[in-house]
Order: sequence, then C-alpha cells, then structure tokens
Amino acid sequence: MTAEIIIIGDEILIGQVVDTNSKDIARELDRIGISVHQIVAITDDKTHILKTLKDAATRADVVVISGGLGPTKDDVTKYALCEFFDDILVSNKDVLNHIEELFKKIKNTPISELNREQAMVPSKATVLPNKYGTAPGLWMKKAKTVFVAVPGVPFEMRMLMEHEILPRLKEEFNRPFIYHKTIRTFGLGESALAERLEEWENNLPQKIKLAYLPNLGSVRLRLSGKGENEKELISGIEAELNKLYPLIEDIYSENINEDDDITVTLSKLLVSKEQFLCAAESCTGGEVAARFTINPGASSCFKGGIIAYATESKKELLNIPWEIIEEHSVVSGEVAEAMATNAKKLFKSQYAISTTGNAGPKKGESEEEVGTVFIGIATPERVFSKKYMFGKNREQIVKKTVNKAFQLLLRELVKK
Amino acid sequence: MTAEIIIIGDEILIGQVVDTNSKDIARELDRIGISVHQIVAITDDKTHILKTLKDAATRADVVVISGGLGPTKDDVTKYALCEFFDDILVSNKDVLNHIEELFKKIKNTPISELNREQAMVPSKATVLPNKYGTAPGLWMKKAKTVFVAVPGVPFEMRMLMEHEILPRLKEEFNRPFIYHKTIRTFGLGESALAERLEEWENNLPQKIKLAYLPNLGSVRLRLSGKGENEKELISGIEAELNKLYPLIEDIYSENINEDDDITVTLSKLLVSKEQFLCAAESCTGGEVAARFTINPGASSCFKGGIIAYATESKKELLNIPWEIIEEHSVVSGEVAEAMATNAKKLFKSQYAISTTGNAGPKKGESEEEVGTVFIGIATPERVFSKKYMFGKNREQIVKKTVNKAFQLLLRELVKK
Repeated sequence: MTAEIIIIGDEILIGQVVDTNSKDIARELDRIGISVHQIVAITDDKTHILKTLKDAATRADVVVISGGLGPTKDDVTKYALCEFFDDILVSNKDVLNHIEELFKKIKNTPISELNREQAMVPSKATVLPNKYGTAPGLWMKKAKTVFVAVPGVPFEMRMLMEHEILPRLKEEFNRPFIYHKTIRTFGLGESALAERLEEWENNLPQKIKLAYLPNLGSVRLRLSGKGENEKELISGIEAELNKLYPLIEDIYSENINEDDDITVTLSKLLVSKEQFLCAAESCTGGEVAARFTINPGASSCFKGGIIAYATESKKELLNIPWEIIEEHSVVSGEVAEAMATNAKKLFKSQYAISTTGNAGPKKGESEEEVGTVFIGIATPERVFSKKYMFGKNREQIVKKTVNKAFQLLLRELVKK
Repeated sequence: MTAEIIIIGDEILIGQVVDTNSKDIARELDRIGISVHQIVAITDDKTHILKTLKDAATRADVVVISGGLGPTKDDVTKYALCEFFDDILVSNKDVLNHIEELFKKIKNTPISELNREQAMVPSKATVLPNKYGTAPGLWMKKAKTVFVAVPGVPFEMRMLMEHEILPRLKEEFNRPFIYHKTIRTFGLGESALAERLEEWENNLPQKIKLAYLPNLGSVRLRLSGKGENEKELISGIEAELNKLYPLIEDIYSENINEDDDITVTLSKLLVSKEQFLCAAESCTGGEVAARFTINPGASSCFKGGIIAYATESKKELLNIPWEIIEEHSVVSGEVAEAMATNAKKLFKSQYAISTTGNAGPKKGESEEEVGTVFIGIATPERVFSKKYMFGKNREQIVKKTVNKAFQLLLRELVKK
C-alpha cells in the first residue's frame, strides 16, 4: 500500500510559499497504514502534470493531487486529469448549486462566470463535496490506482481528507497496520546518543525502523513498524522501548505523541499540578506566549504575558527598577530575573518565563552582541537566568530562545 | 537552466515535519535565474535515492540534494552518491580538523567515532566547508549536470547555499534573467479579480506569466518573466503593471517584495510617520506581536503588548472595568475597544490592535460560539471594533484574526 502526493503550484517552485499540504496529507495517509514513498511538487503546466500522473500510476496505489483547481487561468489540474483519463468536463448540478449558495450566504456577491466553470468536472469522476470552498474534490480510478484531486487551500484540503477521502480509502483498500512511537530526549547530541544506542539499534528486529530527529536542543527517537498483525507489532515495539529506557534514563526523556510540541508536555504537567505560567518577553516579542497558547486548553495553565519591547515598557509595565537596567544593561541576567519575578507576581502565577536579548540586526540599546539572549525562569521556589549566544539570524535567535526557554522550564517541572 | 531539488528524510514522508528547505533553496535558485521545475521528497532509502538521482540527471542542469548527511545509520545520501558516481568514500583531513575543533569549542565533548565518519566524503567531490555543523556540503559533476548535497539542518543548508553554492553556480552557468513583481490587493476575491482583469490578462505578452496567490483575505498577483535581456524584461513587466494599476485602483493595492509579509508594509508606514503600535491580545495569545516583531527594526515602530489571556488579567493589567466585562461579556466589541484604548495609553502609542474571542475547542468564560472574534483598532483619532466568525479550527482562528487585524490597521494607515 503506497501513495504518492503531487503538489501543483508555481508558487512552491519559485520558493514563495512553504508547502504544508503535503505534510498534512502524508500524516493522514500514514496513520491509516498507507505509506507515502514520494512527494513531488511541480508547476501549473499541463504536460508536466500529465507526465507526473503517468509516472505515479506505474508505482502507487493512491495518488493525491493538491492544487490547481482554482477558477483562474493558471489552474490546469482538471484539464490534465481529463487528458490522462481520456475524459471531458461536464457541468455538475450539485456543485453549481453549492457554489451559488456559498456566494449568496458568505460572499454576498453574485456568482461569476469563472465560478460557474468550477462546477465543470471530469465526467468519470466521483465528485467529493467541498463545503468550505468552490472547487470540489475529485475521485477517479485507473486500473487499480485511485487518483484524488483536492484544492490547494489548506483548510479545504484538510476537510476533504477527513470527511471524504480517508473514509473512502479505508473502505477501498486492505491496509497493513502502521505503528510509530516517538521518544523526546534532552541533553545528548545526535551522534553521542547514536553511539550509546548502537548495540540496541543493531539488534532491532528488521521490521522495526529507528530514526533520529534532532531539533534545536532535543533529539527525538522514532520507532516505526508496519505489519499485518497489530498486536504483534505493538508488543514488538513496546518490548524494544523497554530495552531502550534504561539506556537513556540519565537524560530526560518522555514518550510523546508524534506531533506533540514541547508545549503540550508542559501544559499537561502544569494542569496536573494546577499551576499557571506567564511570560515577560522582550526579544521574543510574544512568541513564547503565542507558541504556548496555540494548544487547546492553554487557558487552564497560562495566565498571560507582557511584551516589553521598548525599554520604557520594561520599566513602566513590568516595574523593572531603572537602577537595575542602568547598572546591568537591558540585556542582562539581572533584568531577565527581575522580569520573570515581576511577571509571576503581576499574573499571580507559579511559573514565569522571561526573555531579553538582542535579536539584531542592529545592536539596539544594549552593548551586547547580536545573538546574546538571557532567559529567566521563575518557579515557586526560586528565580534564575541563563545566558546564550544564538548566532546572527533574527528568526533563528527567536526560535532558539523560545525552545530553550521551554526546555529550561520543563526541567524545573519534572524535578518535582 | 533548470534545477531539481531532492529532499531526503522519512520524517517528511510520514508527515512529522514540514519541509521548509525546498522553499528556501527554490527561492535562492530562482533569484539567480535558475528555474526549479520539480521538488521531490523521498525516503532515506539508497535504491530510491539512486533512482531519483538518475531521473534528475536526464532533465536538470542542477540537482540540489538536502538531507541524509547526518552521522546516524538512517543517513545514506553519501552512499547513494558514491554508487551513482561509481566512487568511494575517503577521509578528508580539513573536515576532520573542523569537526574536532567544533567539538572542542562548542560542544565541549570528545569527538565520537560516528562524527569521525562524517569526515568521509566521496573522492570525486569538491568539499564545501560547513562552518556551523559537522557534515560538509558536496559538489559533484556528471556530464553537464551539477549535483550538490547539503545537510538537512535548515540553518546549515542556508549558510552553505549563500556562501558556497550560489557563488559557484553563478560562475558555472550562463543564466537567463528572471524578474518577478508582486502586487498585494485587498477587497476582491480571486475569481472576481480574475474576471475584472480578464482582458488585460489575455493580452499579456507570452513571456510574462500571471499568477493569483490568494491568502486569507488578500490576493497577491505575481507577474513573472524570464529572458536574456534584463532591460527589456523589466520594462515589459513595468509596462504591464502600468496598465494594471487603473484596473485595481478602487481596491487597496501595493507593490511588495516577493516575500514581504503585510507586517513589513505596516512597519514602513509607521516608521515613515514616526508612530508606534502596540497590542492587547487575548485569543491570539501573542501572535499579533510575534508576527510583527519578527521583522528587523520592529523596535522603531512597536512598543510592546499585553497578553491578557485570563479574564482577571484583562481587569488587572489592562484596566478593563469589571462592569464592561459583566455587561457585554469578555468576548465583545466593547471589551475589544477598551483593550485597544487602554493599551494605546499604557504603551504611549498612536495605534493599538486588540483581539478577544473564542478560539475553542471549549466555549470558555463567554457565551459566544467558538470562532467568534472581536478585533479592536485604536488610532490617534478613534477606536472601533469589528466582529468576525472564523470557523472552528483553533490555528485557523488565530491566523485569520492576526491577518485581519493587520489588514484593518493597514486601511487606517493608508487613509491618511
């Protein structure tokens, strides 16, 4: 059971837009036991699309095509499908009705000729209704391969996958069982970890694969298995994990859901203690809070934050005494600790994260080099700060600071 | 001059990680006149890599391979390259020295056997030094095609592209000139806009391509051209833009850099007026501030923000009177306006953005449906709020709220 994903759109190939659709599609297929063995992004060019469809048909059981179904001239996916299936476009009444209603209800504008054309679908296709947009999904079959086309708009694609495509795929195919287990570790680099695990890794059963996924200060280990027998597969992976744990017991590790961000782990720990976090941010500009609050249920463990970007805001809103700033500079451990302590008080929280640093490109009001960051952590018992040098790239500095701050907090939370 | 990008890594194919490398590589190649016509992501499987290399060699002048150069067992790119080039691995002294120094200086741990193996490179390869990591870049040539391999770590890849690969490619190839111009428009949907521009679009010269890039409330129009004569190409595109402007003069539009976020436009406008923005966020949890401050120079136009996630923080830190919350609920236009007004005062700014809403999944302390958001905007002259329904998906609600808030602010800024 293999699948290929074809992403269509010039904007991907000139590097204007990051393609997130292929990740979402791949994850959903993988979860129902369909392995994606290739993702390819190509231009809105009918000949190129046609060639890619032909190649995919020789290898894959499922081909998911995303993009190029819009109403404008540069959208050619439907025409390529017609040529590939030796088919013609016909107007679909249900789709047309839906488009008309959508325009009446949401857009409050009359339907245009171009939108009317979106109701034209290949005659051999099963139409998959797209509640949230004007372009429907299409389901077609050639020999034993299923071809599915979905719009490139991420939300519409996801809804179609969830409600139309995955249920149909589950019905259409006998799928093997796929099982992943991911362990997040801290404190050892990829190669040091690999060396420590070498013997265990060499003795893994053939059907279990290990991957190292390093990411800014932590290394995730992913064990994956695929097989017909669900029970055997799970017990096989769990047995290997039980051999793994003693090997990494001195470096903090945790069993995580495949996609869980570290903030999910933090949230669970805070909620279980009925304690709250808050943030006082300078150089991260709100990113600590934004990353923390994107998880559902953040309100059960996060009170809020102050982004004191200007120095005067640090004084006026976070009550940092002028003398501390004067004596130690605004980018200093002393200021980071005062920020964390005062935020903890202001928000009546048990924990606080603070950040102050110079993310560049200019030096700003401090003498510290670009890339210098102080992170402060306040806990019920103490406050401390650490200094880091995070390079010259602004986005990297922010990202690394936020990750490091969460790691520092995690260590405090698991101590107890 | 065409290129293909090959991204290697199981984590991409099971949908665990979003591949951002291909976007960055594609953009850089495009900017120096090398068109990427295919991006393919495949597994860490030597046979599959080899087949993909062979396919790419038949079509592309440049093949960039990213990933699979790490020290662990699942990294097989080097072995695939050796097989493809009929080559063997040899130890490279410079790389070994660099790895040893890196470990001494940064990691402060002794070098491991696995890291020593990272100094093994194909004997036919030109080694491209990677200052920031242990795996060097590789430059190889077969017939007329250049093959470049870079590590998958985004920062290391970007540094190698900038300092080693792009300069070499510029020297190696005679490249055509590529010119893009992007116009951001607001207020008309993709199809309505396309209908309005139909005649103009139909009359575009063949060598100029138009793309519609819709994104949450705005549609970007991208004109692209490729040719030998730089001057002719630019004047051709500028001439078409001059015909375009009168067609869209009633909907706000602006000429933007290819990747410019709307926050870049806002920053420029604020700096030119010597005015400042601040934020008071509830449901967006810091994302307004985080997106605004990721741009260099944000400190010249952004004072800071308060994330009042808990209702008590709205009262205590933003001084929202209890009566307003009681009477109108915490998710209301009245609260949004009070948040914006008070933030403007607290941060001594001329403009403020506020957000309050219910991002779900639960209803929280308000009776409003999940997806209900109020955005408040305070300007030197007035304060107003607008209500939106942004669906049921938490991430989407936050994203749409932030985008809409910036759009509302932009309209206020360009009025003057």
